[in-house]
Amino acid sequence: MIEQRIRRCVLAAIVCAPWYVVTLAHAQSDPLPSWNEGQTKASIVEFVAKVTKQGSPDFVPPAERIAVFDNDGTLWAEQPMYFQLSFALDRVQTLAPQHPEWKEKEPFASLLQNDVQRALASGERAMVEIVMATHAGMTTEEFEQIVKDWFATAKHPKTRRPYTEMAYQPMLELLAYLRANGFKTFILSAGGIEFMRPCTEEVYGVPPEQVIGSSIRTKFELRDGKPVLVRLPELNFIDDKAGKPVGINSHIGRRPIAASGNSDGDFQMLEWTTSGSGPRLGMIVHHDDGEREFAYDRKSPFGKLDHCLDEAPQRGWTVVSMKHDWKTIFPWQRP
Amino acid sequence: MIEQRIRRCVLAAIVCAPWYVVTLAHAQSDPLPSWNEGQTKASIVEFVAKVTKQGSPDFVPPAERIAVFDNDGTLWAEQPMYFQLSFALDRVQTLAPQHPEWKEKEPFASLLQNDVQRALASGERAMVEIVMATHAGMTTEEFEQIVKDWFATAKHPKTRRPYTEMAYQPMLELLAYLRANGFKTFILSAGGIEFMRPCTEEVYGVPPEQVIGSSIRTKFELRDGKPVLVRLPELNFIDDKAGKPVGINSHIGRRPIAASGNSDGDFQMLEWTTSGSGPRLGMIVHHDDGEREFAYDRKSPFGKLDHCLDEAPQRGWTVVSMKHDWKTIFPWQRP
Repeated sequence: MIEQRIRRCVLAAIVCAPWYVVTLAHAQSDPLPSWNEGQTKASIVEFVAKVTKQGSPDFVPPAERIAVFDNDGTLWAEQPMYFQLSFALDRVQTLAPQHPEWKEKEPFASLLQNDVQRALASGERAMVEIVMATHAGMTTEEFEQIVKDWFATAKHPKTRRPYTEMAYQPMLELLAYLRANGFKTFILSAGGIEFMRPCTEEVYGVPPEQVIGSSIRTKFELRDGKPVLVRLPELNFIDDKAGKPVGINSHIGRRPIAASGNSDGDFQMLEWTTSGSGPRLGMIVHHDDGEREFAYDRKSPFGKLDHCLDEAPQRGWTVVSMKHDWKTIFPWQRP
Repeated sequence: MIEQRIRRCVLAAIVCAPWYVVTLAHAQSDPLPSWNEGQTKASIVEFVAKVTKQGSPDFVPPAERIAVFDNDGTLWAEQPMYFQLSFALDRVQTLAPQHPEWKEKEPFASLLQNDVQRALASGERAMVEIVMATHAGMTTEEFEQIVKDWFATAKHPKTRRPYTEMAYQPMLELLAYLRANGFKTFILSAGGIEFMRPCTEEVYGVPPEQVIGSSIRTKFELRDGKPVLVRLPELNFIDDKAGKPVGINSHIGRRPIAASGNSDGDFQMLEWTTSGSGPRLGMIVHHDDGEREFAYDRKSPFGKLDHCLDEAPQRGWTVVSMKHDWKTIFPWQRP
């Protein structure tokens, strides 16, 4: 009886994992059902057909079919603020009782008065201070648990859905479609690598070893005779802008043939990917649907898209209009 | 006619790739034919049977079947010196005409007089200077080509074989055996990540994204409008000793269930791997066969094995005797 119940729960968990739903949907004739017919969808399908066609001059062996995806704003939402920032702000509230000094110390004092804008006024310095105070000082396993607990309970302020349900259905389909065609899919985000990994397998079907992100230093040590990795309050690597090709080289060791981003932070990733020889797919997700999601680009504090948008036509990058190219935005909006 | 010749060459290249030979051998009943029957071989087979048995309490899902392998001295030879050091010394000779100042500057002056021992007398400082002079200052693509060219022509001083033929046949079989059982195999070496990657796929069947190693910094820039990654003369990461669990966490993001090493530099990798819960395989390759390979352990300047050997019994790590456990050492010695 109990066994049956466990089996049912496991089955439900598997069936409800967004990427699994996509894999099932895949059995249908159209592998990209949430993409409207048109030039954008055609350019994706043509690219995949080209690189997988045995004997064609554009054929790419499976081992070299590497596709990289930015995360925030490309695979899931990033408004009204990056999810990791929401996590950090929640952590400040949770940790405040252990830090009486925060009441008089910026940026924490403003945060504790719920004035996020004033807290972040000093820009990068405030961000780094908040990240170090909330992301360091514990072991990697402790941090993983903290992140998992947060994802299990926190809700997106606009949709009131768990953050893990804020992934874009068309992008989940694209990930599954590429994998079904022999691609290895990687996430390449400016977000924290250890903030993403606890949920990328469930949400996107991307295992932790295929997640690349910004990181702080860790240190190996023994605690009560047991080996642990302790997270130190020191930056290790920023996986953004010119750091993205560096991250690709360090983690993957070969140039991707497809890259998808949505902001100027993805420019060099797109440039690096599409300047290799042979067929390449460069894609930019344009947030132009204020009704079903959020509309923003050149002036947004999160996911600013300006230079990339100007450069896209001459570089042959496909600009995806969320409004016109996507039939559905989120998995739970499917008809 | 020409087409036929090309086809024949391609076929020969594929068939001669060491890991491919192993994959073919795999079709036979014994997946580890170069391992003598006995306790060592049994412990490997039992471990694999345990973690792959559906429904068993020791079952490990395929996604978590991560196996890491040290490279020098574990997967291929490391005597009379690390292959990468041979490479660096050859590069010093090649580059010397462009560096007249080296004639009077240590460690280069001694190297140019073929006195390696004197050159390396100052220890780590000399090594770092040699590495920076030979491994930095070019783009990643240029370096890859330099490494490929070297592997295509350089010969091991004792066997006169290409270095890529100095991989251990039993370990090639083990890699293939684990992969056939759903494992993902990673290389985790103190050697340079970009020195290994150009040949790990051919020699071991391990793609570049599953190779972790020490690295120098790289910088993204444009050269004649083309994006490149330039290798800088600055250390980025040392993937040795306590650095190995850090490298595992950074690149893989979960704890392996199997680890193989051969020196004290692998201690923390073994400790980290085998202190997780559930079945674990920790393995140490002991170089005790002076006749067929090299005999060394506690006092060797390359691949010193001392503390690890003492700790193995109480930690349940399997010590592989090359002399007694291996029927064949190198692929070209097979009967």
